[in-house]
Amino acid sequence: MNTKVVALAGGVGGAKLADGLYKVLPPESLTVIVNTADDFQHLGLQISPDLDTVCYTLAGLANAETGWGRADESWNALDNVSALGGPDWFRIGDRDLGTHLERTRRLKDGQSLSQVTKDFCRVWGLHAEILPMSDQPVSTIVQTDEGELAFQEYFGARASQPKVSGFRFAGADSAKAPKKVLEAISAADLVLICPSNPWVSIGPILAIKEIQSALSEKRVIAVSPIIGGKAVKGPAAKMFSEMGIAPSALAVANHYGKLLSGFVLDQTDTEQLEAIQALGIMALATDTLMNSSADRQRLAKEVLEFGYSF
Amino acid sequence: MNTKVVALAGGVGGAKLADGLYKVLPPESLTVIVNTADDFQHLGLQISPDLDTVCYTLAGLANAETGWGRADESWNALDNVSALGGPDWFRIGDRDLGTHLERTRRLKDGQSLSQVTKDFCRVWGLHAEILPMSDQPVSTIVQTDEGELAFQEYFGARASQPKVSGFRFAGADSAKAPKKVLEAISAADLVLICPSNPWVSIGPILAIKEIQSALSEKRVIAVSPIIGGKAVKGPAAKMFSEMGIAPSALAVANHYGKLLSGFVLDQTDTEQLEAIQALGIMALATDTLMNSSADRQRLAKEVLEFGYSF
Repeated sequence: MNTKVVALAGGVGGAKLADGLYKVLPPESLTVIVNTADDFQHLGLQISPDLDTVCYTLAGLANAETGWGRADESWNALDNVSALGGPDWFRIGDRDLGTHLERTRRLKDGQSLSQVTKDFCRVWGLHAEILPMSDQPVSTIVQTDEGELAFQEYFGARASQPKVSGFRFAGADSAKAPKKVLEAISAADLVLICPSNPWVSIGPILAIKEIQSALSEKRVIAVSPIIGGKAVKGPAAKMFSEMGIAPSALAVANHYGKLLSGFVLDQTDTEQLEAIQALGIMALATDTLMNSSADRQRLAKEVLEFGYSF
Repeated sequence: MNTKVVALAGGVGGAKLADGLYKVLPPESLTVIVNTADDFQHLGLQISPDLDTVCYTLAGLANAETGWGRADESWNALDNVSALGGPDWFRIGDRDLGTHLERTRRLKDGQSLSQVTKDFCRVWGLHAEILPMSDQPVSTIVQTDEGELAFQEYFGARASQPKVSGFRFAGADSAKAPKKVLEAISAADLVLICPSNPWVSIGPILAIKEIQSALSEKRVIAVSPIIGGKAVKGPAAKMFSEMGIAPSALAVANHYGKLLSGFVLDQTDTEQLEAIQALGIMALATDTLMNSSADRQRLAKEVLEFGYSF
């Protein structure tokens, strides 16, 4: 089987399923399209949190406890920045810092984020294609009761506390998808939306018109990041509530709507299966929690089997 | 005795004597004016090698083996930059990197190098004033048989191999000395030129007209960085030779010329004492090698006693 699978992913949760897919699929058959709307400048560095989390996770370099950052990490640079009175709210380890320094240098040198990511992935020995959703800047702006906040201001500095009323993806209207992104979607026989935050991780990817349009012709399966009304990690459930929507697997399926051919929800939420099917979406309830590498691979296999089953 | 001493210093050798002075002088009585013409941009960071070497040395944070960089250092960031194919010829440790990141952030934010250095020195608990020679950029250009080279290109990437024919300090003509530099020189009863490279460490400081002019009214004592015709460290002797001057303590005294009231040379070179005195410069021959902290303090005491003796 000459499988061609595209996964859309944000950070930690998405990276886990992407890692499962990477382990169970044949080499060269997985492309991961990653959210870059969380990217930001910090300490003069161009930081791509989701790209790094996906790359580190698939390359086996990720910190297993946090899910982000590098394993076997030291914190000497940031500790010194902190001692000198500099900003230390965004936790950058020393190894991780090397990635940001070299990425920033190459971007300033005129390389595209796609090219830099490709070169880094080669060094890290990855046989999957990991692509930023765009080489142009797109920035998630969170609209809150305290006004508009840049994503890292909302998520990092303010710990997702302000009440959300909406989202804006600055730059998305004019941002192009890299050619490889469109080629990968075109060649894919299955597109999987990983269990990432629908609003701020997957939302920006879908906000790029060329990607939205390319996906409309594909079999797209989403995996719910909401289990039992709660997000495994991060503010997704809180965002649904604040937007006036009770957080649930059904709410996620409704959110993606017509884009979906299929939906995978957790077995905890099996009672929502019929309501999702009533939307005209094929649905599978299974154990979607990924606590171990074995979990990731089992879920990846089930999602793939489901995706190819109808 | 309300001693006010100013020391002019470059990197490692200068920092050693400055450290001796710092240890033997009463608090608040030492000002070190440091060369910034080696400063450069690297990996997007604003790096001030001599300022950091002096600060780290006096604060007891320096790597005792290398004389530069931080003690108890890790190298994870640069190792990753290197693995990713980035430039690794300039050795930046992780702790050191924190200094560059925070300095760069503050400079971009509009703070002066003087202000940043003052803030850092306070964090590091220093009771001496450590001042950059200027807050404006001055860049040492080494004129060689391969053309003009930026200092770090010559010294770092090319390991001081190209043959030197001269020096140029770009920006020195228009650079101002910070007010505190001129105040410190004005208040000083003794100015010491540390055993740093006369061409590329002390040369740029003296190339700033306001400093040159302020020094002309002061008792200035230089300590020879050349011992037995060789530099303790670095390319100073090689530079003298390539400029057509046999490297010696006498050559250093001649180089500084009328600026000097006194000169301290190594006991190895005692036979040059009279020739130096014949220039109208008071001279002292003693053991100028600084292998230990005790050596630094002994030499500092001797130089101070000599400076105040005539």
